[in-house]
Amino acid sequence: MKIYEFEGFPNPARIRIALAEKNLTDQVEFVSINVPKGEHQTPEFRAKNPSAAVPLLELEDGTCISECTAITEYLDHMNGDPTLTGKTPKERAKIHMMQRRAEAGLLDAVGTYFHHATPGLGKEIEVYQCSEWGQYQKDVAIKGMRYFDTVLADQDYIAGDKFSMADITAFAGLGFADFAQIAIPEDCANLKNWRARVASRPSLAA
Amino acid sequence: MKIYEFEGFPNPARIRIALAEKNLTDQVEFVSINVPKGEHQTPEFRAKNPSAAVPLLELEDGTCISECTAITEYLDHMNGDPTLTGKTPKERAKIHMMQRRAEAGLLDAVGTYFHHATPGLGKEIEVYQCSEWGQYQKDVAIKGMRYFDTVLADQDYIAGDKFSMADITAFAGLGFADFAQIAIPEDCANLKNWRARVASRPSLAA
Ligand SMILES: N[C@@H](CCC(=O)N[C@@H](CS)C(=O)NCC(=O)O)C(=O)O
Ligand SMILES: N[C@@H](CCC(=O)N[C@@H](CS)C(=O)NCC(=O)O)C(=O)O
Repeated sequence: MKIYEFEGFPNPARIRIALAEKNLTDQVEFVSINVPKGEHQTPEFRAKNPSAAVPLLELEDGTCISECTAITEYLDHMNGDPTLTGKTPKERAKIHMMQRRAEAGLLDAVGTYFHHATPGLGKEIEVYQCSEWGQYQKDVAIKGMRYFDTVLADQDYIAGDKFSMADITAFAGLGFADFAQIAIPEDCANLKNWRARVASRPSLAA
Repeated sequence: MKIYEFEGFPNPARIRIALAEKNLTDQVEFVSINVPKGEHQTPEFRAKNPSAAVPLLELEDGTCISECTAITEYLDHMNGDPTLTGKTPKERAKIHMMQRRAEAGLLDAVGTYFHHATPGLGKEIEVYQCSEWGQYQKDVAIKGMRYFDTVLADQDYIAGDKFSMADITAFAGLGFADFAQIAIPEDCANLKNWRARVASRPSLAA
């Protein structure tokens, strides 16, 4: 399998973590797509991913899968029992719910702030910006942090008592927030503790 | 199980279709939440769904699941083999990818246009509107229709040769587009044919 990505970027980071959690990192060939230089917008890359974004998984048979949720579903079901996306219907449902909340309420909100209300990746890439919406999404991200802080008051992980895809999304969201200079509110102690706990996992500490 | 919803609204429609496809409709108690009257914003409902939106699935043990993708995952794995979310890792990945594209590129884009660039559900509900972003999302929705039209040139359904959750999302997206008066471009014949085919399924024709 190949993963097209740009190292250090938040969405590709999600797949790096999922691969490490599944012990699959060395089964993958990483192909670098220089997003700040616009390599994700070439006709060749758009043929693989019409959404013009990384990461992208390419299978041996040429099938291309974009969207981290979809890529994680694939990796998690490749060998044996799933460990990141849930085993029972209820686990699956909770994880997909919380993963979606972690995107809409944190990671994607930070992304919209960064791409619309800051210089983002520069004039060549950010051809359209709506700064009002970007600013609004910054508040969404901070509200998202407060929401996850309350969730983590009662449970160890974002979707329950086990680490899952939802933790990966939220963790990447906080990394992006650091980069975009959106601080975690001082009083979100549960969120900060959870973050330290996740950061010390073998898949991340490496 | 209970489903909190508001009949006729696009996201609740997705779950009505999924239930009918799975022959589960009569196992559900539907609870009406009057969204135009703001019933989704009460403290009682927010305790069940902090995102303050319908549909919401409540299980016998009190577990609450929001987000149509998550609810569909639950329903699809309740009894026997999944039929809407894929059986193999590759099927799962394709369906989740296309379902996400159908949300971001169609259903949610129409929703953002409707809630931000039109009077939407009225002044009481639409307390913040960003009309520039709403207008932009209208173009995203039309681009999404064109994208799905090309996809459907080569395959019968949104995620391949079988009906799936991704078709449900795209179908609900077109219904919402009708309501918001965003027309399907004249030349999108594949999309129109697919729509007619989906509309004639027993789960929808009822
Ligand atoms: N929802 C997508 C998001 C992918 C995404 O936005 N990736 C960023 C890099 S972190 C990108 O490629 N952006 C391209 C651009 O902004 O033009 C996923 O889950 O993979
Ligand atoms: N992504 C959510 C979307 C839910 C949603 O936006 N539902 C609409 C009704 S179609 C709603 O309740 N909106 C409340 C509001 O706009 O205030 C899902 O998949 O369920």
